Amino acid sequence: MDEGRALLSTRVANTLLGAKESWTRRMFEQAAALRKQGGGPVYDLSLGNPSLEPPPRWTQALHELLDDPTLGTHRYMTNAGFAHVREFIAEREAQRFDLPVTAAHITMTVGAAGGINVLMRAMLNPGDQVLVPIPYFIEYNHYCANAGAELVAAPSAEGFTLDVDALVERLTPRTRLLLINSPNNPSGAVYTAEKLTRLADALRDANVGRPQPIVVVEDSPYRDLTHDGRPAASMMGCYEHTIHLTSHSKDLGLAGERIGYIVISPRTAGSDLLARAFAFCNRVLGFVNAPALMQRALPLVLGRDDGKVDVEVYARRCRRMAEGLSALGFSVMPPKAGFFLFPALPEALRDEEGGDVALTDKLLAERTIVVPGVAFGVPGHLRLSMSADDEAVEGALAAFQRVCG
Amino acid sequence: MDEGRALLSTRVANTLLGAKESWTRRMFEQAAALRKQGGGPVYDLSLGNPSLEPPPRWTQALHELLDDPTLGTHRYMTNAGFAHVREFIAEREAQRFDLPVTAAHITMTVGAAGGINVLMRAMLNPGDQVLVPIPYFIEYNHYCANAGAELVAAPSAEGFTLDVDALVERLTPRTRLLLINSPNNPSGAVYTAEKLTRLADALRDANVGRPQPIVVVEDSPYRDLTHDGRPAASMMGCYEHTIHLTSHSKDLGLAGERIGYIVISPRTAGSDLLARAFAFCNRVLGFVNAPALMQRALPLVLGRDDGKVDVEVYARRCRRMAEGLSALGFSVMPPKAGFFLFPALPEALRDEEGGDVALTDKLLAERTIVVPGVAFGVPGHLRLSMSADDEAVEGALAAFQRVCG
Repeated sequence: MDEGRALLSTRVANTLLGAKESWTRRMFEQAAALRKQGGGPVYDLSLGNPSLEPPPRWTQALHELLDDPTLGTHRYMTNAGFAHVREFIAEREAQRFDLPVTAAHITMTVGAAGGINVLMRAMLNPGDQVLVPIPYFIEYNHYCANAGAELVAAPSAEGFTLDVDALVERLTPRTRLLLINSPNNPSGAVYTAEKLTRLADALRDANVGRPQPIVVVEDSPYRDLTHDGRPAASMMGCYEHTIHLTSHSKDLGLAGERIGYIVISPRTAGSDLLARAFAFCNRVLGFVNAPALMQRALPLVLGRDDGKVDVEVYARRCRRMAEGLSALGFSVMPPKAGFFLFPALPEALRDEEGGDVALTDKLLAERTIVVPGVAFGVPGHLRLSMSADDEAVEGALAAFQRVCG
Repeated sequence: MDEGRALLSTRVANTLLGAKESWTRRMFEQAAALRKQGGGPVYDLSLGNPSLEPPPRWTQALHELLDDPTLGTHRYMTNAGFAHVREFIAEREAQRFDLPVTAAHITMTVGAAGGINVLMRAMLNPGDQVLVPIPYFIEYNHYCANAGAELVAAPSAEGFTLDVDALVERLTPRTRLLLINSPNNPSGAVYTAEKLTRLADALRDANVGRPQPIVVVEDSPYRDLTHDGRPAASMMGCYEHTIHLTSHSKDLGLAGERIGYIVISPRTAGSDLLARAFAFCNRVLGFVNAPALMQRALPLVLGRDDGKVDVEVYARRCRRMAEGLSALGFSVMPPKAGFFLFPALPEALRDEEGGDVALTDKLLAERTIVVPGVAFGVPGHLRLSMSADDEAVEGALAAFQRVCG
């Protein structure tokens, strides 16, 4: 498999061929190998691929748009996105955050992943630091590397809540962004408004004397997947230097269609120039613009009762698995949002070095695929995605019972 | 407009706020200002935004796909794209190039721009060189910069044909890629099979003793827009180290929908690892995958008589403008493909320093917007896009007659 190595950039070659294990790839290959072998179903809880289909309203909106005789709707538009779509999004975000958000603060992006890369390229110099609470979405490492920046990880408090002091301790003159993801992948934690306000106060103190403020980047693709239906708390209201990102990969089940957006807080000084930089980076990084048809569907779908997936399906699966695991001695936070569970292993297994990896292997032998916590820098845990279907959830739970019961 | 500068990366701030004129932005702003003023139509020939609508077959295919009850079609798929779509594309490319192309050689991308960025990130180390014949698509400068690479420009021969000797002279130990774009934006030139074969021979000689071969990257979004209907010549058949990229922005009129792909020559040693690297970079750069619905439409549309735009419309406009300009003393290559014309100014104006910019300004006063050749490193020329509608073409030609007649 080394043939062709000389054709690759050193960084990519080292990542693909290096000794450092990629858990994503390992899980993916194991699942593929199991499926190829045959011998019954594979219970794959390793991927955060939304199993709920886009709502019927979305399908209907697309039919309508395709029959719309307006010319030019599939051409390039300004790199920030269609003006009428950005106006629609701005109005909703203004209401959500009670801030004077306008179309000028919105950049439509190729999913949230596209948005984060655009933002980092626009804002970071090589050597700048991005502070992130543990555990975090492992792709952040790559996104920071793309901009030549350094990811600095900070521990969280009990129950994976924000540890404001731990974050503040890790600030350096090179810290430019604080990247938070709430509801969190992988932990499922939802940061409270109280904690976010405390963080805002601490950052304002830290900003005194700095040439530019520390900017909070909220990566919030699960924001509308709270199990109680209330929107997750945000720093948009309490910290002026906040940039918020989201996508419709999960709430509309459109992960493969690549539609998301960036919202710049209208209270950030220099928001006009930031918006120009985001549009510019959308262009020069090769995204050019968010897919046109997906943009135009949003005003026809969002905010309607029939314009979202049924979160209760994910919530029910989360509760079912959490109860089953608790009965086996796992320590599981009550799931509040999204579809990830991040249970701590039972005491006996938790303290064992490599206990999460050993359990992952035992579950694999039972045709069940999970990700060990060590992949997120938190050994002694497993990450389980309840975006799999009911059969996978039941099959995996039975496997847990055989292995740990 | 400098407010917020401290929030931006130095490179982006320098580009957005620097003294170096961005012609794209200048043209865009001038057109917007003219439109805002009112006072009649603006004849905008500055943008390569395809004016022909997607073919009816495409619209029908999307309706069918939206009614398809198959589950999971809007979710994430493997980063390289849907297997059945890649198999379909591979079969077509195998036929086109008479090579054993399989799905393993295809990566579906967010347009050709996404594809080039994926490729450069996968293959280039900082400091590597990318050799490009003049004139070239100005975005290439940004794409190279994204990978930390250096763009090295080489002059072309008479009529903007390939100057093989000039290219070979500029090879250095750091040259990794030779990026060619045929049919060419902005010149409209189509490189001949004879020239490409000569180039292949010269590169094979140059490869002797190099640790890795120089790879030819063919950026070919206009390949199916030749005015005589014959596919443009390619190096896929004559040079084993070729990677071909295209998109359906122009032949299906889908520029805003972002769908393209990379074809690795099956004769390149190490093509498996290259394909893995492209999928990996699709993921980590934040594209993740090409839009799912756009991928799935391709097998239902491509290769059908009703599955492409009517190139003759662009060809007719090109001929009309070329004839009109020739009568005014411009020197225009007979248009062969795509929708760009790159006429040389009449003798008297051509030798004047800044003649192309002066003429651009005079045309602007006549509500006609064109791009001066200096934007492409070739003063004394203008770039005119015939993807504008007939009214713009006629209005612009009348303006030329008033200014140059």
